Amino acid sequence: MIDRDTAVCISLAARPGNHGNRFHNFLYAELGLNFLYKSFTSSDIGATIGGIRSLGIRGASVSMPYKESCMPFLDALDPSAKAIDSVNTIVNDNGKLTGYNTDFIAVRDLLRDCPVPTTKSFALLGAGGMAKAVLAALIEVGYTDGVVLSPRNPERGAKLAARYGVESDVELGDRRPALIINATPIGMAGGSEADSLAYNESVVRTADCVFEVVYLPPTTPLVNLARSLGKTVITGDQVMVRQATAQFELYTGVRPSAEQIEQAEEFSADPDAYLATHTLATSH
Amino acid sequence: MIDRDTAVCISLAARPGNHGNRFHNFLYAELGLNFLYKSFTSSDIGATIGGIRSLGIRGASVSMPYKESCMPFLDALDPSAKAIDSVNTIVNDNGKLTGYNTDFIAVRDLLRDCPVPTTKSFALLGAGGMAKAVLAALIEVGYTDGVVLSPRNPERGAKLAARYGVESDVELGDRRPALIINATPIGMAGGSEADSLAYNESVVRTADCVFEVVYLPPTTPLVNLARSLGKTVITGDQVMVRQATAQFELYTGVRPSAEQIEQAEEFSADPDAYLATHTLATSH
Repeated sequence: MIDRDTAVCISLAARPGNHGNRFHNFLYAELGLNFLYKSFTSSDIGATIGGIRSLGIRGASVSMPYKESCMPFLDALDPSAKAIDSVNTIVNDNGKLTGYNTDFIAVRDLLRDCPVPTTKSFALLGAGGMAKAVLAALIEVGYTDGVVLSPRNPERGAKLAARYGVESDVELGDRRPALIINATPIGMAGGSEADSLAYNESVVRTADCVFEVVYLPPTTPLVNLARSLGKTVITGDQVMVRQATAQFELYTGVRPSAEQIEQAEEFSADPDAYLATHTLATSH
Repeated sequence: MIDRDTAVCISLAARPGNHGNRFHNFLYAELGLNFLYKSFTSSDIGATIGGIRSLGIRGASVSMPYKESCMPFLDALDPSAKAIDSVNTIVNDNGKLTGYNTDFIAVRDLLRDCPVPTTKSFALLGAGGMAKAVLAALIEVGYTDGVVLSPRNPERGAKLAARYGVESDVELGDRRPALIINATPIGMAGGSEADSLAYNESVVRTADCVFEVVYLPPTTPLVNLARSLGKTVITGDQVMVRQATAQFELYTGVRPSAEQIEQAEEFSADPDAYLATHTLATSH
């Protein structure tokens, strides 16, 4: 039951989705939190940020195309947002808006748990927003010996690599890095390269750890190959769950249990299937 | 279940209440409308109006202290808002914000049903926002022979009367109007004059119709006396229900039945009592 004390969180995207609505509202009910979550688009990001501040909207999840354009309207940037010049989470503390980047936080935390020593080399395929988050996180965690691979947009790859002081190239050549990362859509469901491998089998074979950023499907060709070869694997699924959990905690101050997160993800992925075997928590 | 298509309506007030949340959300569920309603306050009405426009928030109910201050930020004013220089309802049509005043609309519609001929005289006690709505409505419906009584703020009463071309005074004197209206807090529950009569019994006795603007309680001393004398009575309750219904219809395009409105009011007044004997409609 919505009342005057219900805290409101929103998401902003050119094409609003339903995953966030399901994930957050499921957990609010599960945890008995008087919150609601609603996805929006915005026709004017500056006006929207002013609305968030003046209405006391508690938080906003920010997707394309607002991740950079929202920044001038905020009051402060967390180091996670500064590290990659990109905000995906806004937290409103009594009218003071702080921008965070929970993608960066999630990737950094996953890399900290990665067993590959930071003295070893890495390769990062991709030069987009997620590649930037991964590269900044690699540097922050202590990796320095790496290469950015961007065969389709070498200029962008070179620019990204230069900003963080690593090499760039259009191909791996005879490098055989210990940590290989895919931050391109290769392997993504519905894409033109859904069945492609982001790295050749010989490269996967000589790596210690494979980090896949694609989360749909949770098992891309690269993930499947790496697992079959017994490699340590970090999946896009893990990144997504970690970043959503970090957002949830920033908004509410509450950290759900791993089991609750898993249920929320299961519900969000397919509400009908979930409801066939579970009962939703009723609102507080 | 909130999803990306859920339309959002809000209310804005210095001290947000719960009546609107209950009333509108009850009817949304009852009618199977994919809407949600949430009360807010605003620290900056201009920024909030910008947020409403840019986020595509469908409607906003406006209370004190924003009824006049919101007006410069809107794109258009309905005649109902122009008539009294006051907005209590904002409707967002694809980014074009129009201000309405459903208090004016409700009072006007009730006066149109009033059996007192417009050639007869009226007295209006009060000089605040609601008195203005009533006076403008009286004039629009065709009453011209009237007096504004404002014993506590004669200057304000005179100003109000002058704007609409009627008399003003600090007392009724030997006038005996056919239509008498109370637009002050006299008779309001919890106020210092909860047990007071807005008009003397002799005045009520000679009137044909009594219009009480106070809605809490629905039966003020004035309403009780008028009914005991067999007078036609228009109550504050009726005004409130009519204005809320008009708002609901402006936001959703749907007019609930009288029975649905009654149930929504019953639920809003006391949800626990309502739920003891009824089951809420489940969300679509």
